[in-house]
Amino acid sequence: MKLKGRNLIQPEDFSINEIDEILSLSQNIIDNPSKYSSVCEGNLLATLFYEPSTRTRFSFEAAMNRLGGRVIGFSEPKSSSTAKGETLEDTMETVSCYADAIVMRHPRAGSALEASRFARVPFINAGDGGNQHPTQTLTDILTIKSLKGKLENHTIGLCGDLKNGRTVHSLVKAMSRYKDTKFVFIAPEELKMPDYIKEAIKGHDYIETNNLDEVIGELDVLYMTRVQQERFENKDEYERLKDYYILTAEKMKKAKSDMLVMHPLPRVNEIDTEVDKDKRAVYFDQAKFGMYVRMALIMKLLGVDANE
Amino acid sequence: MKLKGRNLIQPEDFSINEIDEILSLSQNIIDNPSKYSSVCEGNLLATLFYEPSTRTRFSFEAAMNRLGGRVIGFSEPKSSSTAKGETLEDTMETVSCYADAIVMRHPRAGSALEASRFARVPFINAGDGGNQHPTQTLTDILTIKSLKGKLENHTIGLCGDLKNGRTVHSLVKAMSRYKDTKFVFIAPEELKMPDYIKEAIKGHDYIETNNLDEVIGELDVLYMTRVQQERFENKDEYERLKDYYILTAEKMKKAKSDMLVMHPLPRVNEIDTEVDKDKRAVYFDQAKFGMYVRMALIMKLLGVDANE
Amino acid sequence: MKLKGRNLIQPEDFSINEIDEILSLSQNIIDNPSKYSSVCEGNLLATLFYEPSTRTRFSFEAAMNRLGGRVIGFSEPKSSSTAKGETLEDTMETVSCYADAIVMRHPRAGSALEASRFARVPFINAGDGGNQHPTQTLTDILTIKSLKGKLENHTIGLCGDLKNGRTVHSLVKAMSRYKDTKFVFIAPEELKMPDYIKEAIKGHDYIETNNLDEVIGELDVLYMTRVQQERFENKDEYERLKDYYILTAEKMKKAKSDMLVMHPLPRVNEIDTEVDKDKRAVYFDQAKFGMYVRMALIMKLLGVDANE
Repeated sequence: MKLKGRNLIQPEDFSINEIDEILSLSQNIIDNPSKYSSVCEGNLLATLFYEPSTRTRFSFEAAMNRLGGRVIGFSEPKSSSTAKGETLEDTMETVSCYADAIVMRHPRAGSALEASRFARVPFINAGDGGNQHPTQTLTDILTIKSLKGKLENHTIGLCGDLKNGRTVHSLVKAMSRYKDTKFVFIAPEELKMPDYIKEAIKGHDYIETNNLDEVIGELDVLYMTRVQQERFENKDEYERLKDYYILTAEKMKKAKSDMLVMHPLPRVNEIDTEVDKDKRAVYFDQAKFGMYVRMALIMKLLGVDANE
Repeated sequence: MKLKGRNLIQPEDFSINEIDEILSLSQNIIDNPSKYSSVCEGNLLATLFYEPSTRTRFSFEAAMNRLGGRVIGFSEPKSSSTAKGETLEDTMETVSCYADAIVMRHPRAGSALEASRFARVPFINAGDGGNQHPTQTLTDILTIKSLKGKLENHTIGLCGDLKNGRTVHSLVKAMSRYKDTKFVFIAPEELKMPDYIKEAIKGHDYIETNNLDEVIGELDVLYMTRVQQERFENKDEYERLKDYYILTAEKMKKAKSDMLVMHPLPRVNEIDTEVDKDKRAVYFDQAKFGMYVRMALIMKLLGVDANE
Repeated sequence: MKLKGRNLIQPEDFSINEIDEILSLSQNIIDNPSKYSSVCEGNLLATLFYEPSTRTRFSFEAAMNRLGGRVIGFSEPKSSSTAKGETLEDTMETVSCYADAIVMRHPRAGSALEASRFARVPFINAGDGGNQHPTQTLTDILTIKSLKGKLENHTIGLCGDLKNGRTVHSLVKAMSRYKDTKFVFIAPEELKMPDYIKEAIKGHDYIETNNLDEVIGELDVLYMTRVQQERFENKDEYERLKDYYILTAEKMKKAKSDMLVMHPLPRVNEIDTEVDKDKRAVYFDQAKFGMYVRMALIMKLLGVDANE
């Protein structure tokens, strides 16, 4: 029960073994959801979204409800006390009086760590600006583990905006902890993987290319990303690059028969909807894995377990 | 169990027998609510309101909660993923991962049918622009059935904005399926019942008038409607017509002693508050019937039942 | 069970004995929360916030959830039906169809009493403009009772904006009902306690001063208040006065060793964060008492009790 009472700010906060523990509980929940349908009865989760994110909020709220727990929260900053000049610190102190765990999404990088110091209950970072989004990373890892059967020895392609994508940065760092992972970074020059991420995975094989077609055949996993308009200061640059790397049914013909196509969602047009019908397209399943991994995470941090 | 797994986009999606089944379950719930207070335990409803509608949202959320189920949702478009460029289709795919049924309100006519095709769980249209609002129609039918004891052989007056009111269009089509229904359409020239609705009920008796006073004595049901500002492009025309047909205590003197006054709510001033005290005014009871019929609908689509 | 079915608009609506009954139930809940974790099963609370107030809303929603009840609601006016021209009266009539009790926050003074007349279920005022906020008063009283062991014979200092603060007005009136209460009003000339409040507590000892330092040593309770920007018409006057009375660790040295520092929250800067570490600073505990007293209140108004 070492995870009980802990916070999750970034994926590295948990050891490989702790992540394994969460993945393994996730799989148990998937296999037998009704066994867990009331383990969080009497527990209350606060979801504080200082920036709207329906998908992430729904995933957490569905998770807590499917464990029999309850949820209070807000979905956009205007409904918060911040408008009255309250500090994030005081909000954390107060919400800790009401709830048994806190999930926070905030537009400012670094806000999660800061806020977590004042939370007197387990705190989960649901995204702090361009910085971290650790439950997305757990989702991605569970998806690969569950559908591939293992986390070691995969060639993982990441395609699209590798410069601004916190999701891909976290995933790369997280997967670099597993044996014999190879990376293929597929991006235009302007959106290349930053050097500090390449530094962080030193010792692992990686190649860089701007041509998806040439490398797709070697991949076990293809992780597509959205070119996020929010992250661009220059609108013209966004317009020029957004369609650069689009995955089509045609391109899929060159891919392995068991390659997984993943995407953190929402997608705009970087994956053609034709691809949705392909069995290798698992991005909607990924959303479901995201709910299960959050169920496991909440259980672990609250220290609850199913009765045997 | 033929209703299990189905969608509800428009009232015509269900046969007369299926509607009967829902009305009959609604009546059972009214008679013995505690018997149904946990039939939806472990089930999660998503309420997606791309346009605010407190009343309809509350009705669905109260319904699901009173069945022991849980709810996740948003109450206005800004909290949705659409702001990030996601399509309605992808939102449906994703929400289907989290929830066991979806309720959607959307300002665009036709959006409900489109969205329902991508929902992998039962989908309920809670209003798509000026098009359809089928649970309001079920509410109206249950109110008449429950308070009149039958659905056949009524003279139903509809008064106010008959041109733009999707509620009255649906009700007219729905009631035309029952034997010996007569309609009285009461509206100023500018807001008359459209021809395509009159076409749709061909073979049924109806009369048109612009004078409520002259016909009120013959009605079994008087369905008042709000002159909705949102539906008018010209503000002056709205101001000129909005007070045209106001129901007062004075006018009620000429009505039958068992005539029902119905209204989909919210009302602005088309029914004088004096009338509220009249026993024949059942518009607030109607809101309660709306909750019960939604409880029955949710149960049927999820395929759950009370233990005997 | 005299409280069953009642409304709470202002603290004076309940007798001293009735408040005692609520405080005593609150203490029982604090001592044994699990005993009460499902007493409100099957009950639905509507939280109608026509003005955002996360803290108060969370407190009520946490309370209802911790009793096993359910919640529907909105957190800001745009999500309400009022935008469609509906009156508050009609909203109350309708919400009464869905919910078993109503909590309302509204920016207009007097709106709570008005609305409560049309609610057909117990109605709780969660703040109506500058007028009343009775559950804050119950919170404050429970905090004093629980931490001081009694409500009689305290010297209570109130500091900051005593002119506009409905919270302090209510607290002063409420505490004046207990034996041998003495008041110390600490405020600059511009923000002094209004005469009508001083009238209302006639016969009780009070002194007025603009110097916190001089009186802090005599206080059993120091109630700090926020200088609320919303209440000022003149922005310059707000800027000039807002920092006038700031409580610091230095000032705390002169206070009694068992003095309570209270604050309705949110604070801006009127209490230095250094003070947070002081054991006498109980403003965050106060938030927790607020949840418990609301649990007791909801139980009493709904007429539910724990099974013995």
